[in-house]
Amino acid sequence: MSDRKTNVTPYAQLEARFEELHQLGHAQAMLSWDDAVMMPRGGGRARGEALAALAALAHRTLTAPEVGDLLDKAGASLAQLNEWQQANLRAMRRAHTRAIAQPEALVRTNQLATTRCQQIWRAARADNDWNAVKGPLGDVVALAREEAAALGDTLALDPYDALLDGYEEGTREAHVAELFDDLKGFLPDFIDRVIARQTAPLPLPGPFPRDGQHALGEDMMGLLGFDFSRGRLDVSHHPFCGGVPDDTRITTRYSEEEFLESLMAVLHETGHALYQQGLPADWRRQPVGNCLGAAVHESQSLFVEMQISRGRAFIEFAAPHLRRHLGGKPGDAAWTADNLQAHSRQVRRGYIRVDADELTYPLHVVLRFEIERDLIAGKLDAADIPDAWNEAMTRYLGLSTEGDYRNGCMQDVHWFAGLFGYFPTYTLGALMAAQWFAAASATLPDLDSQIKAGDFARLIGWLRRNIHGRGQLKTARELLIDVTGEPLNLRHFKTHLDERYPG
Amino acid sequence: MSDRKTNVTPYAQLEARFEELHQLGHAQAMLSWDDAVMMPRGGGRARGEALAALAALAHRTLTAPEVGDLLDKAGASLAQLNEWQQANLRAMRRAHTRAIAQPEALVRTNQLATTRCQQIWRAARADNDWNAVKGPLGDVVALAREEAAALGDTLALDPYDALLDGYEEGTREAHVAELFDDLKGFLPDFIDRVIARQTAPLPLPGPFPRDGQHALGEDMMGLLGFDFSRGRLDVSHHPFCGGVPDDTRITTRYSEEEFLESLMAVLHETGHALYQQGLPADWRRQPVGNCLGAAVHESQSLFVEMQISRGRAFIEFAAPHLRRHLGGKPGDAAWTADNLQAHSRQVRRGYIRVDADELTYPLHVVLRFEIERDLIAGKLDAADIPDAWNEAMTRYLGLSTEGDYRNGCMQDVHWFAGLFGYFPTYTLGALMAAQWFAAASATLPDLDSQIKAGDFARLIGWLRRNIHGRGQLKTARELLIDVTGEPLNLRHFKTHLDERYPG
Repeated sequence: MSDRKTNVTPYAQLEARFEELHQLGHAQAMLSWDDAVMMPRGGGRARGEALAALAALAHRTLTAPEVGDLLDKAGASLAQLNEWQQANLRAMRRAHTRAIAQPEALVRTNQLATTRCQQIWRAARADNDWNAVKGPLGDVVALAREEAAALGDTLALDPYDALLDGYEEGTREAHVAELFDDLKGFLPDFIDRVIARQTAPLPLPGPFPRDGQHALGEDMMGLLGFDFSRGRLDVSHHPFCGGVPDDTRITTRYSEEEFLESLMAVLHETGHALYQQGLPADWRRQPVGNCLGAAVHESQSLFVEMQISRGRAFIEFAAPHLRRHLGGKPGDAAWTADNLQAHSRQVRRGYIRVDADELTYPLHVVLRFEIERDLIAGKLDAADIPDAWNEAMTRYLGLSTEGDYRNGCMQDVHWFAGLFGYFPTYTLGALMAAQWFAAASATLPDLDSQIKAGDFARLIGWLRRNIHGRGQLKTARELLIDVTGEPLNLRHFKTHLDERYPG
Repeated sequence: MSDRKTNVTPYAQLEARFEELHQLGHAQAMLSWDDAVMMPRGGGRARGEALAALAALAHRTLTAPEVGDLLDKAGASLAQLNEWQQANLRAMRRAHTRAIAQPEALVRTNQLATTRCQQIWRAARADNDWNAVKGPLGDVVALAREEAAALGDTLALDPYDALLDGYEEGTREAHVAELFDDLKGFLPDFIDRVIARQTAPLPLPGPFPRDGQHALGEDMMGLLGFDFSRGRLDVSHHPFCGGVPDDTRITTRYSEEEFLESLMAVLHETGHALYQQGLPADWRRQPVGNCLGAAVHESQSLFVEMQISRGRAFIEFAAPHLRRHLGGKPGDAAWTADNLQAHSRQVRRGYIRVDADELTYPLHVVLRFEIERDLIAGKLDAADIPDAWNEAMTRYLGLSTEGDYRNGCMQDVHWFAGLFGYFPTYTLGALMAAQWFAAASATLPDLDSQIKAGDFARLIGWLRRNIHGRGQLKTARELLIDVTGEPLNLRHFKTHLDERYPG
């Protein structure tokens, strides 16, 4: 920080420091994308070390003794700051408080352990090899408990709440459990009814070459407003959205037998990407210019995937595009909107969360929430996960995963990457997506005909204006109330399910 | 540096700091690769800012006040260090001396200006648009002069020497000019004689699909010992070798009309890559574990491209592989070793340095050396480059580049990227490559039959043992004398040219 002038205000000094953190974040984001998309396996160790060093450097920059003083001084003259600057200061303080709760050595060890464990998981998952990951995952769980305890002490929260709060500010286990109990109450019967009533759609004739699937994905991204001058679509083991606002990178994976999972992954990640690309340009390098938490982020992906893309209007619009890219015949009954809709709304109790329909998906999340909560509380150890998983899958979805780790507890990268407290945000995001969509529909009355015509400009404009472009100016709770008039609740999600799956 | 113990030795404290610099270097290398290979154009500004911030951070880490003290203290107890540690300390001191000569603000401004200028160049070159780059290049030249003057003051060197020394330690303008005068003396007549005598080879029937060229390139890389578990081959605007030792990334570019330029670029970059992958594993994170300067690096690429790959034995080995990948018929006279050799040794006065044969190539370098020397000395300005280029091209190669910037002074990225003093290392590397190859041939007497059989293990093993695996244990000058018995000289290069182009 040697070239920082002492005659600038404390707030301006903080902005300079957080700009440096933003640039380290750029490097971290791009190296992580590269790790998942480009890196040859032998580069893993060096990459892990580089990411650990960057994490330690960022932590050191954030926790330097002068930062606390600057935050206090800037806070003492709030009146001199405009509303964006005030919100920025608030976001800085939050980041600082969480960072000082953890010693640098823990941050570094955690980064090393999680990068290593992820890399091992990537190979082991293909081999259904639980023994290869059990030990490394045990290390990651131990470090996560240590982190949660340290954060909990500082924030005066229970350890698991301290982790939840890191992914979406204000989220608490008790509220999540309450919402999830409601879902557990009505979803199993609802699923039974839908499955009993649904008919099998006409099969869609493959194979579907990757090139056609890729071109279709890029077409859909472009139509939805993805800016390809500031982003890319690639392939990775697990679909994700990464990069930075001016270089947003989403991924999918392809199977030549089936295209819908891959396409839905592209649409899902496009929702994330639109959020990232739509962040306020004037605040690019500051915390207030970032996305809100993981639940709001997921609400944007599910807004596109569940609310828009599986809706009737979108399917009518998209059907000819699908036919054209995937070799369907115009007259073929398999490629009609009716049949494509039936495919996109098939409900099935399956093993894989990312392939799940919107009715069974929350049960996958409930299962993970309950296991990770117990892992952090020390009631379960990493070695107990397969049994706990099998028991819960049997209970919630009637499926055994005994011995099938690949389609069981090894299917998701999260825990291997040290992400505990993240899973609940998927379902909180689903509730929120329904809530946003209801609000958008109320102000855009001819929305259906716009979507049918492939005109998404006003809808995406609504998202940009109300959500994307506001960064962290408000908290998620404030934003929900401001835009939808209500705090997070289940009502709109239930209404949405009742309307989409009538009877 | 908060977790650094004070009871460790000064040398160990320096190792910890330089390990952090190595990790920042990892991020810089990968972000630069991504910039050239993957990044969408709109990501350019953010990437430039991130690279500038990393450069500033590295500079600050290297120039912190305590580093000078630690270097002095470590130097005072040299006897406690082994020869690798001593060489490491020497490399640390060299890096530190060059860094403290430049204020952080200059480093940051330079990084921003060169990243921006490169990005503008990339688009402008395609449009032959000199006006678009003239201004940004002027800024880059002004900053390079400032840097050269600051370095020259600290190192007690002339400004241009201070830049040369940064790319290959110990290189001086006077010695380069002497070697280049010798080349300017004999090459023009030599080229005349070869051109007058050579006959046109049979044309090679295209088109050559990119996939076949890519597979051929990967095959050749693998045969030469490139480790694909620690590296990749991709496409970029300008071929280069980037990344880190455990993740070495080379690039080429493809034309479907012609395959030889692309293949030779792959072989050339493979030479660079073998050097990088063969660096001493025990010293990965320290300066002594790095490559020597740009001339030695280039000597490795030219060892593979010029000494091995354009030799008769290699062409006999490679001919069937070329036929197989590129659709040549086995009996076709165009695909015989004789005809392929004639193609690979055609001498032609052309516009483009990277496509030049080994006889005209040094004249391209002489031209750039003379212009950049005058640019740094203030005798020429950026705006004067096109005229100076045209005049020198006409004088040395009999070709006018008036109005043709794309094939003239805009063909190479170097100056737009702020690299002044780099060009001479290409030809110094060519001399050195001939010198290494003569030494290797003397100790591997059946080398020709090994190459004909596609067995490169002993030859690459010789490079690893004598050059790659020794990192910066010796200076380039010491290493040349140790391995070849002589300092850098023109004799082996002349002998090589006389043997390859007899008569």
